[in-house]
Amino acid sequence: MIDEKVINEFSQIVGARGLLNENLDLFTYSYDASFLPLLPAAKPDLVLKPQSTQEVAAIMKLAHKYRIPVVARGLGTGRTGGSVPAEGGLVLCLDEMNQILELDDQNLMLTVEPGVKTQDIYQFCAERGLFYPPDPSSLKQSTIGGNIAENAGGPRAVKYGVTGDYVMGLEVVLADGSVLQTGGKMIKNVTGYDLTRLFVGSEGTLGIITRAILRLIPMPKIRRTAQALFDSLDGACAAVSRSIKSGAIPAAAELMDQISIEAVAKFRNIELDPRVKAGVIFEFDGDSEAGLDAQIGEAERLCAECGSVQFRIAKTKEEEDELWSLRRGMSSAIAALAANRIAEDISVPRAALPEIVKRLREIAARYGLQLAVFGHAGDGNLHPSLLADLNAPGEKEKVEQAVGEIFQAALAVGGTLSGEHGIGLTKKDYLADALGETGMAAIRSIKKALDPAGILNPGKIF
Amino acid sequence: MIDEKVINEFSQIVGARGLLNENLDLFTYSYDASFLPLLPAAKPDLVLKPQSTQEVAAIMKLAHKYRIPVVARGLGTGRTGGSVPAEGGLVLCLDEMNQILELDDQNLMLTVEPGVKTQDIYQFCAERGLFYPPDPSSLKQSTIGGNIAENAGGPRAVKYGVTGDYVMGLEVVLADGSVLQTGGKMIKNVTGYDLTRLFVGSEGTLGIITRAILRLIPMPKIRRTAQALFDSLDGACAAVSRSIKSGAIPAAAELMDQISIEAVAKFRNIELDPRVKAGVIFEFDGDSEAGLDAQIGEAERLCAECGSVQFRIAKTKEEEDELWSLRRGMSSAIAALAANRIAEDISVPRAALPEIVKRLREIAARYGLQLAVFGHAGDGNLHPSLLADLNAPGEKEKVEQAVGEIFQAALAVGGTLSGEHGIGLTKKDYLADALGETGMAAIRSIKKALDPAGILNPGKIF
Repeated sequence: MIDEKVINEFSQIVGARGLLNENLDLFTYSYDASFLPLLPAAKPDLVLKPQSTQEVAAIMKLAHKYRIPVVARGLGTGRTGGSVPAEGGLVLCLDEMNQILELDDQNLMLTVEPGVKTQDIYQFCAERGLFYPPDPSSLKQSTIGGNIAENAGGPRAVKYGVTGDYVMGLEVVLADGSVLQTGGKMIKNVTGYDLTRLFVGSEGTLGIITRAILRLIPMPKIRRTAQALFDSLDGACAAVSRSIKSGAIPAAAELMDQISIEAVAKFRNIELDPRVKAGVIFEFDGDSEAGLDAQIGEAERLCAECGSVQFRIAKTKEEEDELWSLRRGMSSAIAALAANRIAEDISVPRAALPEIVKRLREIAARYGLQLAVFGHAGDGNLHPSLLADLNAPGEKEKVEQAVGEIFQAALAVGGTLSGEHGIGLTKKDYLADALGETGMAAIRSIKKALDPAGILNPGKIF
Repeated sequence: MIDEKVINEFSQIVGARGLLNENLDLFTYSYDASFLPLLPAAKPDLVLKPQSTQEVAAIMKLAHKYRIPVVARGLGTGRTGGSVPAEGGLVLCLDEMNQILELDDQNLMLTVEPGVKTQDIYQFCAERGLFYPPDPSSLKQSTIGGNIAENAGGPRAVKYGVTGDYVMGLEVVLADGSVLQTGGKMIKNVTGYDLTRLFVGSEGTLGIITRAILRLIPMPKIRRTAQALFDSLDGACAAVSRSIKSGAIPAAAELMDQISIEAVAKFRNIELDPRVKAGVIFEFDGDSEAGLDAQIGEAERLCAECGSVQFRIAKTKEEEDELWSLRRGMSSAIAALAANRIAEDISVPRAALPEIVKRLREIAARYGLQLAVFGHAGDGNLHPSLLADLNAPGEKEKVEQAVGEIFQAALAVGGTLSGEHGIGLTKKDYLADALGETGMAAIRSIKKALDPAGILNPGKIF
């Protein structure tokens, strides 16, 4: 509970407009897009909606003075509970700081506030022939602040990298309310430690991002989609790896296992060749027709060598949409198979994909659970979905144990707990297994250095 | 001075072979490639050459126990005194940990020890059709450990990024001798803070890098060189910016001002068109002839629009070498113009290049010093060279003041102190101007968190 007097002090910063403390409001800011809403809500004591860096800084000064926990959030699309106010306190909702502040057309840099939606950034740039590549699945709803805080990825990471690869500078309000500027519009910068990258992916535990400078690239002139269906998952994985090694690097290479494909096919009434055990949707992009033809030709040849039973190249926008529909319908189609879908986000070395899928299937079989696997074959980032009915007796415990084993399997093949969703609340129990004692001590010491009072997003990551 | 008893303890770790403490040896490890050798030497008390992570860890445990400063180094090609033992103590020379440990051909990852030369990594990969892009000028002598510690760049950064963009994981021995593993062969990884990136560019002040996992890409199938000469430096800068924006992104775009070009022309007896005021050497690479032709064609067109008086495309390897000879001969040709050449390494937003060159010239004129400017036009990283005779009365002071003003000018146009050489000893006095009080406090707190006793490369950066 926050004292009435203190609430008044906050109110003086943001005004009545920017302060929410009705019960229903508090509930609205208590969850994200993870499976945590199924658990008892962790309600904030107060929600503030600042409109400027100055307001955020003033709020943090007060919060620091009174040692009130502060959880920053955008639109709550996170998948690991990162923006859930686990220990109550303040939720700092940044969705009203949603301006694109500057397009620097000469340096190809965009300066934005944290509350701008990722899709709006993409669109704004695309209309000007420029490209902001990171494309988390949530991009229509997620904000850039959240993308940066979780270092969000997406299908295009295989060719273009993740959010962090496009963040050149940040403005961050630190735990004590001081305002830090990192990086800038320089491409090369070795001036002190790389604080920009330290805040990227730090999940709101080190500071509140209030502004970001994003690097843009020219929009590729041509894109082409192809769909390859395979008689084995190993073949599908090998085709993607070999394509990348050959230099035919797809802008996206989305992998789907047999259960995933069959689910979508059923959901969408698509006739499926019975030999199909896996599929890959490829996107290629580039600037010359000839170059693109050569790449797709190479990919097709390699797919055939790896046991593809079908390779279709979209010739029209409609065909492109049709090919992508297999992948785009996936989440809903799989969700329809069971009462609950528990989707994870592990990341492994690309070559370990066949091995990890084998292990995941063994785990699911051991617990008698259905498992669908899809993900980003080009970068080894998988989203295994356990299908269950969490209300059935004993099912929740089984799922929890299976999830634990999934993480152990990811680590065992040289991978890690999260490729693009972060650790948040849902994976913190496994973190020490991934980082080891020395790694945990190192990140704890950094957290303590930048937030000695521990008020920033407490209970997350660690 | 290190106690004889303690020296004996170190000797038990590395053996007589790995321990140097003769006066001449100590002198050999007292300097790097910066202008600091002109100053009184900062000699180490002891040089150790470990051959394994275990030895490094044991050394650090002892050094930590006795609070002895430790300066890691490779082959001493640094430009800012980063490996100079400013406060004496131990120099840890890692040049005997020089093995390429593993090529993971499936995941396109290379695991190396810190003492491998950058050129050897490039060559090893090139022979297998793979590409390690970072190309600091010192690559024939510099080691990968030093490249990572300084986040070295190079001409190819404009298209391919810098060293840090290829480091996927590190093994680091921390100040207390504990061994930290960061990252791995995963492309996507949001598991705890990005410690890998924190150690990249930390100049040996946070830990000793003992192993690195490097990401490789397929070697581009074709490369082509072009040389454009311009009647103005503004035109040369504009041509590079417009080329990048159009999607014709060069693999390198090396800028030379009039003094630099004239120096090389004189040095090499090349006849120069009197209209020439600036030049750019472009390298383009790709996988298809057609795609490359289109890119070079676009670059040529844009150069013409920006006032190029000549645009030559190399047709043979000999012509390529000839075109590059302008750039490759630059350092020696400029050095021959004066007794001393004080070369800096500022990094500015690309579009600020004309403005910064104008300001640099004003500064040089004010101090009556000659100035040659060349650098990486594609990424805004410039190497202004002041020409002087440091033995002439008052000249050293003039140069020092001019260098200070050069840094202020870089900051004033939105740039920073270093693009690829680091801060080391030579730029630390200017760091607070670049990072501000909050930035300084943040990096100091991180240093203190990871090296509370302050034994790692003391006197650097801060």
